[in-house]
Amino acid sequence: MLTAHTIKVLQSLDKKKFRQKYNLFLVEGNKIICELPNSNFKIKEIFSTDPQKLDRTDCPVTHVSDNELKKVSFLQNPKDSVAVCYLKPEEKLEDQTIQFVLDGIQDPGNLGTIIRLADWFGIEQIICSEDTVDFYNPKVIQASMGSFTRVNVVYCDLVDYLSNTENINIGTDMEGENIYRFERPEKMNLILGNEGSGMRPETEKLLQKSISIPRFGKSQSTESLNVSMAAGIILGQLFSK
Amino acid sequence: MLTAHTIKVLQSLDKKKFRQKYNLFLVEGNKIICELPNSNFKIKEIFSTDPQKLDRTDCPVTHVSDNELKKVSFLQNPKDSVAVCYLKPEEKLEDQTIQFVLDGIQDPGNLGTIIRLADWFGIEQIICSEDTVDFYNPKVIQASMGSFTRVNVVYCDLVDYLSNTENINIGTDMEGENIYRFERPEKMNLILGNEGSGMRPETEKLLQKSISIPRFGKSQSTESLNVSMAAGIILGQLFSK
Repeated sequence: MLTAHTIKVLQSLDKKKFRQKYNLFLVEGNKIICELPNSNFKIKEIFSTDPQKLDRTDCPVTHVSDNELKKVSFLQNPKDSVAVCYLKPEEKLEDQTIQFVLDGIQDPGNLGTIIRLADWFGIEQIICSEDTVDFYNPKVIQASMGSFTRVNVVYCDLVDYLSNTENINIGTDMEGENIYRFERPEKMNLILGNEGSGMRPETEKLLQKSISIPRFGKSQSTESLNVSMAAGIILGQLFSK
Repeated sequence: MLTAHTIKVLQSLDKKKFRQKYNLFLVEGNKIICELPNSNFKIKEIFSTDPQKLDRTDCPVTHVSDNELKKVSFLQNPKDSVAVCYLKPEEKLEDQTIQFVLDGIQDPGNLGTIIRLADWFGIEQIICSEDTVDFYNPKVIQASMGSFTRVNVVYCDLVDYLSNTENINIGTDMEGENIYRFERPEKMNLILGNEGSGMRPETEKLLQKSISIPRFGKSQSTESLNVSMAAGIILGQLFSK
């Protein structure tokens, strides 16, 4: 049984303000929930339509009906369970060999996809500008497919960070150096800008270099690749060397 | 002014059945609409909140209110205009040097992203199994960002096609050859399977080879990269040679 109060609290967790107020966020679906015990995220409680299948003894598991689950799920097609988890204290690791730096990424699907991509290639940290979409946004968590448990995401003043890092700051830009000829430095930040407006001028000023993916198609359209797709292609290329 | 009948017809175009019945589909937003005159797609008429901005004389343009546009748009945040276009007779081109072959891709966002990716790398044709999501689905058109005008997408019996093509059929698979060591054949099909279940066994039987993107991260998760992301990374690598 879910009380009206619990429903109200859980429903509010799609907003950053309430996630911070309650220090909680939601993880949906047994598949992702099962990755939580191997991570630094602590579960407060789980609401599940089939607690036996989940078989957890490390936290309270409440049996709920499909209808109740629907009320607290942020998915169009709710899955089997919802885990209510505590936010993790933010902690910056030392600079890694390759890091993503995100300057104002707004789409939660893009951030989630970039986290998943980072996880695949073993990138352990992503640095975000303070106006980048919130890591705990339910759509970010969902799109990351459990990778959010393995990649450290920190928010900070980018100008401050980029001015002081010892990593080489590399941007992405239609006029940048061809990625197929680019020599990867020993330690680098790959900076990705906002979906519509790109990097801020003050971020661009702190780049040592820009790289680009050459266009082979005949199109004269000004349209570029989606930011997460570009990140994937660049990363794939960086790891070929 | 939009008549009730027009609204009803346009609203029905999110379903394949009605797109085929009326031989029509929708393209939304001036930016993409402006790419239509350079393509083989014919516009029947345009409904716009600002016809002057669009400045078109080659087809009827009707001025509509924001509220009317909202009624016929499939977007959460409708743009400036909606173009009603005729479906194009399907026509298969000769096999190209590199083609995507899609075996049951279901998510319209994925198909749209793959079309956009193909366009970037100059891939002119995509072969789809008959159960792949419909090209004219509004979400496919929107996610392709105008690239749908430059990439030929055909639907056919894949077993039949793959048995008769002279291109080398290359699949993607967790156990396939490392893409960083893979030698690209002169003419190839890159076959991508369904998001959940992968390729059908009868498709797999017709592969000459499989390739894979090595995982550098420590995760033991069974989760793989999203199909369109994997396609992008592989394509990026194929074009490096």
